[in-house]
Amino acid sequence: MHSGGGENGKKALERVDLVVRVVSHMKKTLESRLAPSLVTIFVPPHVRAFFPGFHGTQLLPASDGSGPHPHLILDDLAAGLRRPSLIDIKISARTWYPSAPDDYVRKCLKKDRDTTSLALGFCISGVRIHQGGNAGFWRPDREAVRRFTAEDVKRALRQFVSSNPASDPGPPDCAFASAVYGRSDGVLAQLLELKAWFEDQMLFHFYSVSVLVMYAREEVEARRAGGGVRVKLVDFAHVMEGNGVIDHNFLGGLCSLIKFISEILTDPDECLAEPNKTHLSFENGS
Amino acid sequence: MHSGGGENGKKALERVDLVVRVVSHMKKTLESRLAPSLVTIFVPPHVRAFFPGFHGTQLLPASDGSGPHPHLILDDLAAGLRRPSLIDIKISARTWYPSAPDDYVRKCLKKDRDTTSLALGFCISGVRIHQGGNAGFWRPDREAVRRFTAEDVKRALRQFVSSNPASDPGPPDCAFASAVYGRSDGVLAQLLELKAWFEDQMLFHFYSVSVLVMYAREEVEARRAGGGVRVKLVDFAHVMEGNGVIDHNFLGGLCSLIKFISEILTDPDECLAEPNKTHLSFENGS
Repeated sequence: MHSGGGENGKKALERVDLVVRVVSHMKKTLESRLAPSLVTIFVPPHVRAFFPGFHGTQLLPASDGSGPHPHLILDDLAAGLRRPSLIDIKISARTWYPSAPDDYVRKCLKKDRDTTSLALGFCISGVRIHQGGNAGFWRPDREAVRRFTAEDVKRALRQFVSSNPASDPGPPDCAFASAVYGRSDGVLAQLLELKAWFEDQMLFHFYSVSVLVMYAREEVEARRAGGGVRVKLVDFAHVMEGNGVIDHNFLGGLCSLIKFISEILTDPDECLAEPNKTHLSFENGS
Repeated sequence: MHSGGGENGKKALERVDLVVRVVSHMKKTLESRLAPSLVTIFVPPHVRAFFPGFHGTQLLPASDGSGPHPHLILDDLAAGLRRPSLIDIKISARTWYPSAPDDYVRKCLKKDRDTTSLALGFCISGVRIHQGGNAGFWRPDREAVRRFTAEDVKRALRQFVSSNPASDPGPPDCAFASAVYGRSDGVLAQLLELKAWFEDQMLFHFYSVSVLVMYAREEVEARRAGGGVRVKLVDFAHVMEGNGVIDHNFLGGLCSLIKFISEILTDPDECLAEPNKTHLSFENGS
């Protein structure tokens, strides 16, 4: 259940608000078959942990000031994590569904070509990285993230697990790569588990769905087990029925992300030997 | 090297002719890096067998009567197989490359939506199935194949490994499924090997490339080892550089095909219990 206040609470409320749109969309497209409570029926137990837990609906004031609306109450995905670093990675090269109207296809296609979605099979849609101690977060603004090139994405995935700040003239040091991306319960292992499910499941096709990765730097630095590493699926506004076909679009993008992360783990030296630093906008967030 | 005459020779010549276009395209896009002889440098030995062998160039009369043109001499992929059954499966949901001009994108996109490419991640672009004894081939014409729905594709992949003719009112019996799709050296095993390479390789992106599957019914019926099962990659006219990213588009489609074939192997009963036979055009070929 989302917490009542603070940073995590705000994040959870934003997410809850988003889900209102999800439900009305799901009702249209899936006749409620994908209502979150039904995830527990269709999704095998070991995959269920990737989905936010669902705790019923409530009438709550919408964040846009339009008055009370029915909201789904979902888990606060970052509950219990102190100052988590977060990266929101929108998976798949194509964000539109085959039956979408032409206007919608054109709009999405342009966006997929403008971002890295088409080229890489995924794009980063948000990132904030705790810079250690009291240095706050590195949090490039939405517009800067939207303009990320393939090189920027590569660097951001490294910066995400580095101890040196993004403002450093040198390359990211990837000091936390093995603790966050590696390990038997780390990000890579969890993504591989997700991949195995996507190779098989034919119930749902996920358009514009993100993988949200988070960890707590303080826990990693203190070498606490797990380091607060979590991998979750979020943003289900465009989930469609699978009609007996695997989600080859999502799966392809997921495999591409897996390869990017594997490379960081297998070539840690490249982190420190990066020849050309990409300049990303830097902003000290809260 | 392609044989001088007969059915296989004609097929090989057609393919050789096609490859002329490939080379001129490759020269433009890859500065010849993908010239077939170089496959031996970039592709690991266990994957090389999926590519046709290359035996130099020759000036030969083009099949469109436009006079002599330089031709690549490639292996006759069906050499040594008597009356092979063949299925040409064009892999990937998207047949256009990210830097393609808008007109080309629009044309391909329409085609991908009209065929099963977008929905399934692959489409069948040609099929001929030996019907046993002297019954000739089931060979639906190009236009019929182009109109295949998802159900038609499902059925054609079953028909491809069935002993009863496509004209049967009942469902395909999948009698050869385990001999052709199964086995440790069968189609599924070979596709999984190809998949493992695509999860890793970042050199080439394959657009409009097909997996060509073939086997000899007589060999399968006589329970000869291997049954003449072959899996090859063909049609390299639109191969691009990978630029450090896996070919998530091809990989997704390949995983979808793998799932279709796995389902035939794991649910053999469904072959015989198929409730609604899809009516496909039937033509007795040579």
